[in-house]
Amino acid sequence: MEKLSIVKIGGNIIEDEASLTAFLKLFSNLEGKKILVHGGGKRATSMASKLGIASKMINGRRITDADTLEVITMVYGGLVNKNIVAKLQALNTDAIGLTGADINSIASDIRPVKEIDFGFVGDVKQVAHESIDKLIQANFTPVFCAITHDGKGQLLNTNADTIASQVAVGMSHLYETSIYYCFELNGVLEDINDKNSVVKHIDSEKYKDLLEKGIIADGMLPKLHNCFEALNNGVGKINMGNTSMLTQENDNFTTITL
Amino acid sequence: MEKLSIVKIGGNIIEDEASLTAFLKLFSNLEGKKILVHGGGKRATSMASKLGIASKMINGRRITDADTLEVITMVYGGLVNKNIVAKLQALNTDAIGLTGADINSIASDIRPVKEIDFGFVGDVKQVAHESIDKLIQANFTPVFCAITHDGKGQLLNTNADTIASQVAVGMSHLYETSIYYCFELNGVLEDINDKNSVVKHIDSEKYKDLLEKGIIADGMLPKLHNCFEALNNGVGKINMGNTSMLTQENDNFTTITL
Repeated sequence: MEKLSIVKIGGNIIEDEASLTAFLKLFSNLEGKKILVHGGGKRATSMASKLGIASKMINGRRITDADTLEVITMVYGGLVNKNIVAKLQALNTDAIGLTGADINSIASDIRPVKEIDFGFVGDVKQVAHESIDKLIQANFTPVFCAITHDGKGQLLNTNADTIASQVAVGMSHLYETSIYYCFELNGVLEDINDKNSVVKHIDSEKYKDLLEKGIIADGMLPKLHNCFEALNNGVGKINMGNTSMLTQENDNFTTITL
Repeated sequence: MEKLSIVKIGGNIIEDEASLTAFLKLFSNLEGKKILVHGGGKRATSMASKLGIASKMINGRRITDADTLEVITMVYGGLVNKNIVAKLQALNTDAIGLTGADINSIASDIRPVKEIDFGFVGDVKQVAHESIDKLIQANFTPVFCAITHDGKGQLLNTNADTIASQVAVGMSHLYETSIYYCFELNGVLEDINDKNSVVKHIDSEKYKDLLEKGIIADGMLPKLHNCFEALNNGVGKINMGNTSMLTQENDNFTTITL
């Protein structure tokens, strides 16, 4: 099978013009077929605050009410996504910006209300891998923002990490997929206080070992859990580290396989 | 050649939820291959005002400064475009929302500064009809908002009527194209005070006649001028009227041909 890279960037890159420009150059130079997934970071929060929309949090988790969804649609789907597309075009990458509503690429269900009503948040139900592949086969590079839809006309807010892993799982029907999760750290760290203590390779056995030793904790717990779920569902390989892992020069990042 | 309809809607439809829903049903039911082009109407102005961005006008014409372009990108490219796409998906139309930056579909040049510096406004330079056709051939329905790009990473504000006519001209290389300009009136009126005095057919001779009689005046002058420019550049037919011209029942609108 042909290779396909799914690269996810977070708010830290998007919010800094110089970081974004540098990253987009690396992404453009990345060989082979590829997909970009981005979040929106703090720009949605600051835009909401400018518009007098209070960020509602319950138990430390953000609630997406109708006003917040509007801001997310403007900032993620419009401002951030279309500026990334324009910049990629300038780098000769024939990008096309998408939400999950476009070509019905990512359908989701609104999250059921249990203890918390998260509002307009979608849990991914189906990725239209064949439709997405029509774009890829036409040599376009899809750029997804963190928005999906319910198929009934409602846009929904969906976590960008989840979009990256679900799109990768879907595309695994057609490609040998690798995910690149770009974040602040150099990778999964053996010692959280030593940024160079990167665990270079994690497989199922090593994962169990790291869990037992308590080395994977806090925010890394759900991230790694999701990685293994994606690997168990067809994704070939997952890389975690800073954006320089997209180059040939840097091999100091974490690669995760089954 | 196969037929392709390019339908343009303005702010009056977008701003009213019921009108938009009704229009999108008509558009979904329209047979054959099609493209939707939309403006953003007053929502950009009201969003700018909420954000404390003053609308700058010189000689009655809007200036697109950097802040205004940001608002336009958020409102046209995000909020309006993606909600239209989600609603079309619910109507089983496999829509894909685009700016001119996506797949480099509409390249433009920033308008040169003469008496007035219009700011980030783009005059269309090139429509990538073959790239747009890849989407159409994949059975996707392109939905364009009124944003183009300069190919160097800069998004630009471009009039939605112009986008509709330029896209139609471009697509005329591959299709027998018709434009539908949906607006408030029933068509070009013989008597501006009688909304039923629709001129049903205008050709080059009738156009000359109407101009001489002063029946085409004010805002209609540039509209009709642009129509004949499009017809002279390959567009087959242009229809002007309210949205019900998309149905079989209503034949009370203006059709313009060479």
